[in-house]
Amino acid sequence: MVVSYFAKPYFYRTPNNNPVKKILAELLTIGDEILYGQIVDTNSQWMSVELDKVGIKVIRKTTVGDVEEEILTAFAEAEKRVDIILITGGLGPTSDDLTKPCLVKYFNSELKINEEALAEVTEFFKSRGRELTELNRLQAALPTACEKITNPVGTAPGMWFDKGDKVFMSMPGVPHEMKKMMTEHVLPRLNKKYKLPVIHHKLIRTIGIGESFLAEKIADFEKALPEHIKLAYLPSLGEVKLRLTGFGTSLTQLEAETNALSETLKERIGQFIYGYGEDPIEVVIGRMLREKKLTLSIAESCTGGYLSHMITSVPGSSDYFLGTMIPYAYEIKMRQLGVKPEILEKYGAVSEPTIIEMANIVRAKFNTDIGVATSGIAGPGGATPDKPVGTIWIAYSDKHHTVTKKLQLSKERMINIRMASMAVLNLIRQGLPK
Amino acid sequence: MVVSYFAKPYFYRTPNNNPVKKILAELLTIGDEILYGQIVDTNSQWMSVELDKVGIKVIRKTTVGDVEEEILTAFAEAEKRVDIILITGGLGPTSDDLTKPCLVKYFNSELKINEEALAEVTEFFKSRGRELTELNRLQAALPTACEKITNPVGTAPGMWFDKGDKVFMSMPGVPHEMKKMMTEHVLPRLNKKYKLPVIHHKLIRTIGIGESFLAEKIADFEKALPEHIKLAYLPSLGEVKLRLTGFGTSLTQLEAETNALSETLKERIGQFIYGYGEDPIEVVIGRMLREKKLTLSIAESCTGGYLSHMITSVPGSSDYFLGTMIPYAYEIKMRQLGVKPEILEKYGAVSEPTIIEMANIVRAKFNTDIGVATSGIAGPGGATPDKPVGTIWIAYSDKHHTVTKKLQLSKERMINIRMASMAVLNLIRQGLPK
Repeated sequence: MVVSYFAKPYFYRTPNNNPVKKILAELLTIGDEILYGQIVDTNSQWMSVELDKVGIKVIRKTTVGDVEEEILTAFAEAEKRVDIILITGGLGPTSDDLTKPCLVKYFNSELKINEEALAEVTEFFKSRGRELTELNRLQAALPTACEKITNPVGTAPGMWFDKGDKVFMSMPGVPHEMKKMMTEHVLPRLNKKYKLPVIHHKLIRTIGIGESFLAEKIADFEKALPEHIKLAYLPSLGEVKLRLTGFGTSLTQLEAETNALSETLKERIGQFIYGYGEDPIEVVIGRMLREKKLTLSIAESCTGGYLSHMITSVPGSSDYFLGTMIPYAYEIKMRQLGVKPEILEKYGAVSEPTIIEMANIVRAKFNTDIGVATSGIAGPGGATPDKPVGTIWIAYSDKHHTVTKKLQLSKERMINIRMASMAVLNLIRQGLPK
Repeated sequence: MVVSYFAKPYFYRTPNNNPVKKILAELLTIGDEILYGQIVDTNSQWMSVELDKVGIKVIRKTTVGDVEEEILTAFAEAEKRVDIILITGGLGPTSDDLTKPCLVKYFNSELKINEEALAEVTEFFKSRGRELTELNRLQAALPTACEKITNPVGTAPGMWFDKGDKVFMSMPGVPHEMKKMMTEHVLPRLNKKYKLPVIHHKLIRTIGIGESFLAEKIADFEKALPEHIKLAYLPSLGEVKLRLTGFGTSLTQLEAETNALSETLKERIGQFIYGYGEDPIEVVIGRMLREKKLTLSIAESCTGGYLSHMITSVPGSSDYFLGTMIPYAYEIKMRQLGVKPEILEKYGAVSEPTIIEMANIVRAKFNTDIGVATSGIAGPGGATPDKPVGTIWIAYSDKHHTVTKKLQLSKERMINIRMASMAVLNLIRQGLPK
């Protein structure tokens, strides 16, 4: 069976509607630890996204173990299929690691100490006050057929092999080493070697609306997009990202086109858009608080610390976040936070009057501009007939107003915790003085 | 290039030292959303681990997009390589999903409504009060060449194809649907079809010691293991799991052998072992607290809510966890938690005197048996010459004693937050009255 590279998915279209053949890539991961499930392969997701951004189409991902025959077979198969073979893993200094000897064999090459690589690995160890062992010295031995690619944050250099109009590129499997090598060396070189299309992405981040409702609201917008601009829905727990991708020859033109389309989206669904680009909601909220010089405190019960963790995962959050009380037990809600016993007794911990108290009290006690609160049934236990698992009250309070919302989420504890926290962040976004 | 299945990795050895050929599998994931990095493939890790447990060796993982030629090529290649081809994804009701039409073509079969599958999908929708659409009805159309495998938690049935002594098995890509189908139907059937070895795993969980120190302490133990029992190190952030795996013919014998070996390990490294099997440290700590009828409160500063989140991620944690104060800001440490100003001023927030105060005060205020605390420089900002990023104090307090520990962790904020939280859980384990 022969794969036709001219089948539809292997094209893109320019603004003039010309079909252009895509440059194809395969991601080859080598290592028993991935194959046997000891670690999850997150490298290949990152690489897919980055390659997609520059217009290289990944058509296959392959993982094989540390077995010579398997590795050599995978090289040969990939070379038949694609233009670019990106290999990660199997570059450690021990004898289990077979990527380098297999590359030597595949390219009928030989290993030789690369003086520049040796200087780099020596310097790497010296700068960390560590001894260079014989095993580490051997990491500077490279196949003569390859070009060394510097690894500025590790000891195994990358290896670039040109084979006619194809490329084999071998990189370490350690994520931050691979990412640095890809960003600084591999992507720019691939861009130079191949005539890649100009691609421009615009990411639009929405919160507070589900994928299908969003799709309904902008179905006609999507249908009316020009052939060279695509819209993708990227849903995750509590938010939906929209990505406009334009293919063409002029970056300026594509930027202008996607910006105009993004403005149209803003008119249509602006109330759900919380930002553009890479920053998640907790970073956006943090920036808003810092800019407005406002401070935040939290009283979170059913979210159990996760909301505070989201806020404090952002470096520098101590500029606007002062503190949290997690009154998990009934008596802590009463005695430590100070919710009035008559309110707790009359309405229960999961109720609108209680959540209003919680948000107002934490704001007053911690002396912040804004107070937010959560209280609900995360599950699986704790449900009552009128408050099933997933019933969660949230509130936002500042000196002008207090806003509450009742959520009816899922049966899954972790999903409820995550989604309620996202909903509070959205409440902050909506509640902040404009 | 022909792969020799009799090369060393494709054998296991029984207690009589007989080599037996392993049953080989390939995991084939179908779907553009995986290929382009829109979602991370976690299915294949789970499947690898489960297949490994029953003695089926995964020798390759392949991902292809929703493209007919790619899928058919992948089927043919996999059939040449392995005994079992496990396919996930591409079973949705829309026209992008090509797995079923490709299976029809590959097996020269035809689609026909499977009455049993139709009854199941109808019932599925009925029980949820939803209308059965024509698209959903078509999910009950299956290739006549396959045997239907019930999907108790979704609408797309599994498809089992026997081809000589090989098996193609197609499953939905939705993780919980795939897992239920694998556990309830696929693994038992594979066990019946193939003469699988008896395999027994014993997982030993350690905390508070790094992989290389652990390896040094038990190097001779590992060397002395019999040929049919292997030891694997499974390190993750803040802990190292050890896994003993025995291959043989008698489960009783393997259990006895691994239990005896595990006892030897307990004598050697017992102080680092916190549990056996699947439960992580937060579950183990929760069980200890519940059994001893002890309650816990937390004052966490630099961990910012993550420690509380770990504790409250366990269902039923409200039985022993009463609440947390996160005194992120200096003035909250003083005014809300109540750390004495003279201690804060003299020693600073990141110091032993302050951390002792924090743990003791939260225990007294929240009226719990145990109080724990964290305070440190999570980074990247906030460092001083004598307190670099990663300097973190933690403390444990009960009515008998207060224990403190100074950690010197990494430069990475998230790593510091996670590792400090794990270290506190270890402090609770060590501090609890025996």
